Amino acid sequence: MTRPRSAAVLGLGLIGGSIARDLGAAGVSVLGRDADPETMRRAAAESGVRPVSRDLREIDDVDLVVVAVPVLAARDLLAEIAGRERSRAVITDVASTKVSTLEWAEELGLAARFVGAHPLAGEERAGWSASRTGLFREARVFVAPCAGAGEEATRRVVEMWTMLGARPEMVDAHEHDRLMAWVSHAPQAVSTALGVVLAQHDVKREELGPGGLGVTRLAGSSPEMWSDILTDNAVETARAVRAVISRLDALASAMESGDVAELRRSLYHARDWAVSPAGSPG
Amino acid sequence: MTRPRSAAVLGLGLIGGSIARDLGAAGVSVLGRDADPETMRRAAAESGVRPVSRDLREIDDVDLVVVAVPVLAARDLLAEIAGRERSRAVITDVASTKVSTLEWAEELGLAARFVGAHPLAGEERAGWSASRTGLFREARVFVAPCAGAGEEATRRVVEMWTMLGARPEMVDAHEHDRLMAWVSHAPQAVSTALGVVLAQHDVKREELGPGGLGVTRLAGSSPEMWSDILTDNAVETARAVRAVISRLDALASAMESGDVAELRRSLYHARDWAVSPAGSPG
Repeated sequence: MTRPRSAAVLGLGLIGGSIARDLGAAGVSVLGRDADPETMRRAAAESGVRPVSRDLREIDDVDLVVVAVPVLAARDLLAEIAGRERSRAVITDVASTKVSTLEWAEELGLAARFVGAHPLAGEERAGWSASRTGLFREARVFVAPCAGAGEEATRRVVEMWTMLGARPEMVDAHEHDRLMAWVSHAPQAVSTALGVVLAQHDVKREELGPGGLGVTRLAGSSPEMWSDILTDNAVETARAVRAVISRLDALASAMESGDVAELRRSLYHARDWAVSPAGSPG
Repeated sequence: MTRPRSAAVLGLGLIGGSIARDLGAAGVSVLGRDADPETMRRAAAESGVRPVSRDLREIDDVDLVVVAVPVLAARDLLAEIAGRERSRAVITDVASTKVSTLEWAEELGLAARFVGAHPLAGEERAGWSASRTGLFREARVFVAPCAGAGEEATRRVVEMWTMLGARPEMVDAHEHDRLMAWVSHAPQAVSTALGVVLAQHDVKREELGPGGLGVTRLAGSSPEMWSDILTDNAVETARAVRAVISRLDALASAMESGDVAELRRSLYHARDWAVSPAGSPG
């Protein structure tokens, strides 16, 4: 039986809050902690989440600890968790980068029971008020255990995501972080850059049509979370952003010189990518 | 009575096709033309659209001509329309740029009856198969008449969009094209650039999460249409793209040098823009 009976969710934002709601609805005894008192009050009132003390003593008695704070903040939290020497809970996280957290968990002696995870269920809204039951239904969740993690620990984390309706997939942490730089972290940087430029040019968001709104939607994402991700996955994300800059420069040059053939080449290349392989853009 | 009784829609793609469907449903006698024979067959079968001959002779007898082909192709078509000397139809278009088309209509002697329009209802799908009734419901439509356009002509075009449920707004063509470079044409270039980069790095679209899909959705847009738009509005769009490049370069440099303060500044700047003034990102 790997299903958790009790869990502590540390950080009750969009992801942590949605996990707490789903676990509570599934009959798991859920404790939680959040820096925001109003979030704690609402989590208690809306989902029966009981508070975790400042010294984390309640985690001595839970089956599962879910770390759901921005990835760099998670480091301090893991150190605190490692300090609770009586705890035998399986520990997982939800951050968008995996390599540095796994390394840190190993340094802290948590390797046997740390199994990292990353649900592909983010969106631009943040906080408890954005959290909801069912957020992870049909979502892909990448699971990356520490090298020394026990099978039981891995099974428990996989089981938790399965309970929440998600589709867990085992991944290598390094491959995961490299891929995320291209499919998620560089797109965030692109959306942020466009948002800043439109802000600087006094363009109101309401002036945008449906296409422009899609491109800038991620600009509304949590700065706290993304500052940590872009710092943690800086090398590969900067490489991806430089590739986008290079392609944008080619497009701008083509517009400036009237090189219609180059414009068409890029537009067809991107379009052919966008309509394959599923047959139509999502 | 400014409501058209008969209209010829030239180009039956997403926008032209949707106009033909709505006009037909509203009881207007609709003729149409498209380079694709299968589109003509379906438009006849699904919406009773009757064909316009190669020499456009049918437009001698309609109240309204809607030019719905990519903006540079529209120039040739306007010249053909001007050649039908008996026609007194009001002429409108749907292109995303307005300045050059209005100038061209004036050169062709069509100023008295040409009233440009641009519905903000584009999306990444294209062609008759993407067209549908109700596409323009609640959509903003920019209307820009030639300097010499008659009031009756302007009223007829405004009335057509009102019939289709849209919200027409009079605009100055130069201001329109400048604004579109920032809110629509540069976002398209950004989405295209990211699509090309992901294609070049063998990243499949299905690897993307919801955020990345949003940023790259426009990459699937019609290359024919966008090649014309980016060529026609090249100067201002290149300026906007260069501004995005500059901001992306600042972000990449901040990642490379570990300048977390700069990352946070950009992320907060973009986020504050994205959540104002409507209160929440769309």
